[in-house]
Amino acid sequence: MGTRNTQARILQAALELFNEYGTAAVSASRVAEHCGISKGNLQYHFHNKRDLVFALFQQAVDEMDAGWYRDHLVPTLEHMAAMFVRQLKLILKYRFFYRELPDLLRHDPHLRRRFARNRERRLCEVERFMQALASHGLMRLPPDARRLRSIVDVTWIVSENWLNYTEYHGREVTATTILEGYYEILEVLRPYLCADPRQITQQSYRTIERLASQTVAPGIRAAV
Amino acid sequence: MGTRNTQARILQAALELFNEYGTAAVSASRVAEHCGISKGNLQYHFHNKRDLVFALFQQAVDEMDAGWYRDHLVPTLEHMAAMFVRQLKLILKYRFFYRELPDLLRHDPHLRRRFARNRERRLCEVERFMQALASHGLMRLPPDARRLRSIVDVTWIVSENWLNYTEYHGREVTATTILEGYYEILEVLRPYLCADPRQITQQSYRTIERLASQTVAPGIRAAV
Repeated sequence: MGTRNTQARILQAALELFNEYGTAAVSASRVAEHCGISKGNLQYHFHNKRDLVFALFQQAVDEMDAGWYRDHLVPTLEHMAAMFVRQLKLILKYRFFYRELPDLLRHDPHLRRRFARNRERRLCEVERFMQALASHGLMRLPPDARRLRSIVDVTWIVSENWLNYTEYHGREVTATTILEGYYEILEVLRPYLCADPRQITQQSYRTIERLASQTVAPGIRAAV
Repeated sequence: MGTRNTQARILQAALELFNEYGTAAVSASRVAEHCGISKGNLQYHFHNKRDLVFALFQQAVDEMDAGWYRDHLVPTLEHMAAMFVRQLKLILKYRFFYRELPDLLRHDPHLRRRFARNRERRLCEVERFMQALASHGLMRLPPDARRLRSIVDVTWIVSENWLNYTEYHGREVTATTILEGYYEILEVLRPYLCADPRQITQQSYRTIERLASQTVAPGIRAAV
């Protein structure tokens, strides 16, 4: 089997175990075992657990890079729903990362710098998308650029933490949870949207139902 | 020394160490050592680390209970600033808890139930405060009660995660950070407030400067 293939299998095994048990409870040996390779073979590809976490983060960034920067070219409300649902899906896929974020970043300055840089880039993209919506008459932006940044920040904080918030109540993550998360985000944006709120909700609902129901992987659920 | 006094000292030592190093890196022995007592004496009061975490959470809830339920009796915008700053201060004091929240709650169903119950109570209190603001002509609430709940949810998610968000960028937590957090929350509420935004900001600024500058304990800062 090729190196690339082995690395992909290792990362998939690590992702499954981290999502299920958390990074603290999963040793590199256990990842190797889950993957059906020797510990030595794993170490040839990834020196330690920190390397695995970093590689999984990089994989998430690569998934974002494959297309996200083109969002502002499709400035519609339906696309906005798709955009936020896509983000919630990514957070669901890399569930452990967003559960353990403060701790992971606190103990790895390199990861923290990469994370901050990626986030800054994404926030600019969301801003650019909002500006495109405004130039198509779909949104009335606040006059002050700092206020737009605050609004974008808030949507980001909510989407990053919505699944945690759901898990705090011992609820499973389902398509409905993702839909509810988008509604919370929409509530922040609603005062600035020009369209009829009912229409937004109906359009978003269809988009989200379609996207979110494809999303929810079995085995990734809140601990009960 | 009395039992209550020893317990208070143990909890203070645990809080300091957890805030500095995270719960995973701090053993019960280390808490005992930091506190200048034997491990046996500590275990007499707290069976294990999980008990310490639970007792610290209970302490935070007790601090909230000492007065927070009276907020709706003072429905002013200045009090709203004080209310959110008080919450951010509490989150700063129990920093480790909010850093490790998803993990701590996932692995302790008892703590999760208590946390969910307390949060539900607090969200109702914030709603009640908003309704009091509305009845004094200071806020125009959305017509749908579910939308008000979404807005309150969002302010809660932002305040709970703002200091984490700050630390992701490697920034120290200062009075300015707390002020910025309140501005983010204010941005969510602004479309529903009836007062002049500049006036709100000026009033809030004075309140927050006063409260937040008393807040920031030395030694509690973001890792850099």
